[in-house]
Amino acid sequence: MDDLLTRARAGEVRALARLLTWVENRARGIESVMKEAYLAAGNARIVGITGSPGAGKSTLVDGLVTAYAASGAKTAVIAVDPSSPFTGGAILGDRIRMSGHDRGADVFVRSMATRGHLGGLGAATADIVTVMDAAGRDPVLIETVGVGQDEVEIARIADISVVILMPGMGDDVQALKAGIMEIGDIFVINKCDRPGADELERTIRGMLALAPEHSGAVDAPIIRTIATRNEGIGELRDAIARMHADTGRETDRVARKRDAVTARLRALLEERLVGTALERVSSNGKFESIVDSVVRREQDPYTAIEAIIDNAGFGGRS
Amino acid sequence: MDDLLTRARAGEVRALARLLTWVENRARGIESVMKEAYLAAGNARIVGITGSPGAGKSTLVDGLVTAYAASGAKTAVIAVDPSSPFTGGAILGDRIRMSGHDRGADVFVRSMATRGHLGGLGAATADIVTVMDAAGRDPVLIETVGVGQDEVEIARIADISVVILMPGMGDDVQALKAGIMEIGDIFVINKCDRPGADELERTIRGMLALAPEHSGAVDAPIIRTIATRNEGIGELRDAIARMHADTGRETDRVARKRDAVTARLRALLEERLVGTALERVSSNGKFESIVDSVVRREQDPYTAIEAIIDNAGFGGRS
Repeated sequence: MDDLLTRARAGEVRALARLLTWVENRARGIESVMKEAYLAAGNARIVGITGSPGAGKSTLVDGLVTAYAASGAKTAVIAVDPSSPFTGGAILGDRIRMSGHDRGADVFVRSMATRGHLGGLGAATADIVTVMDAAGRDPVLIETVGVGQDEVEIARIADISVVILMPGMGDDVQALKAGIMEIGDIFVINKCDRPGADELERTIRGMLALAPEHSGAVDAPIIRTIATRNEGIGELRDAIARMHADTGRETDRVARKRDAVTARLRALLEERLVGTALERVSSNGKFESIVDSVVRREQDPYTAIEAIIDNAGFGGRS
Repeated sequence: MDDLLTRARAGEVRALARLLTWVENRARGIESVMKEAYLAAGNARIVGITGSPGAGKSTLVDGLVTAYAASGAKTAVIAVDPSSPFTGGAILGDRIRMSGHDRGADVFVRSMATRGHLGGLGAATADIVTVMDAAGRDPVLIETVGVGQDEVEIARIADISVVILMPGMGDDVQALKAGIMEIGDIFVINKCDRPGADELERTIRGMLALAPEHSGAVDAPIIRTIATRNEGIGELRDAIARMHADTGRETDRVARKRDAVTARLRALLEERLVGTALERVSSNGKFESIVDSVVRREQDPYTAIEAIIDNAGFGGRS
């Protein structure tokens, strides 16, 4: 695997793809590669892109990536998809997109399932960003679908978060209030030729006015785009670049990185500690019978985890 | 705290409220109460209610609760709200609702913040359901806002999940595909007097037809309501009761309970193990400096967590 990292860093796309599969699957032995990758990374600008379904995120990301490619940047896109309890996999994982690009050389696209990761989305996504970064991809765009906890986790990883909205969302403004508005550094009104763009801009400004002054959210740029016609993409790209270059944001940047690292350490601790405890009790064949006894209320969950912790040898000091 | 549980079980509403605050805050010493509560619980029907913002969930839940109260049931509602990074609290936590009810006696309403819980939403919500259940509340309704990971976690806790939709959602159908449709046992078309109700019903049926046959999702009831006029609420209540009484669902019920217990054990393990590790490294004053060194890339996160695990005394066996 160390060899894969060396080759990925030399620009070999297939080595990068294979390495990312190991990392996403949390294969044994990724720790040593991740240690090396982390120390080599830190150069890429990480941009989160989120918004409601139907707002045109994918088209906008395609346009952005094309704009970056035109100036010679080798970018990466991580598409974080809600996964299906039915299929167990990513619903949109096999979507065909970005077909206008030389797949993998200019832009490297990776779809991720959001579930089934111990440590949540955080541990695997942060590691994948690190590997992309170490392989020289810049910027790394993280595209999320939907509204909720995932977006907040992603916002923690990203240096800059772009929130995509569209006119005529109606009741969805409630959803914005509840979360998305609060993680945005840049707002995009996509499909801005539809009726209601001015009203949406006023709504956004009104919400931002409620943010604490020190957050700087009051002055967040609001960019109008029509992604399907490639209108406004250059302006969005410029707004992202200006924000990255803004030295006045240095304090905020460090604070974010500290939050991101804190979340990452927590996610890794969960993965390692809970993973080890469950593995040890499962290899003893005991886990299923513990679950059954709790279902039948013969024992309670708290007593059960104490037994699991003891069995894992984690109970020594307490 | 043991005394609070005894008093809550005797029907004392203020004791229940105080106990739930301890449980939600994960206070020290809740383990012994939770052990007792868990063994006393298991009688309540747990109903999850979810849907997009604006679909009319709160009005519908109010109507349901009124219908249950009319037949003498003492219900509980847990409103799981997205919380704000700005305020740190629940945005909707102080909303005034259910004012038509004798607050606390017929229906006990509790709003929860979704963030800041080690172990995610799962550990605290499952414990709160258990306490409500032990205190004789039945049914316990869990109302969630938004679309995403949270809804799936809630669906795991609930015996039955009701998904509320409304006509004219347009692009939101994408969001449904991505998640909500797959956790629904009963679907509600609220605001069914709006144009598009028939089309929405066809869309739902079409999506359900794609579900695996054994899941039984193909035959899920679709109920039409106008919650603001209290129309269809009785039908929804009956559909929930029929589903609870359906002996053909016993296998599915046990499978769900096993999933719910598995998720709960994981969440409790995370809370206990990661919480203990972080507490020990924080009391040594080391955590902040570890975070800083990772931010400066002087060390990588994997090396950092190994040190944290060793420091917590969890590194003995490996």
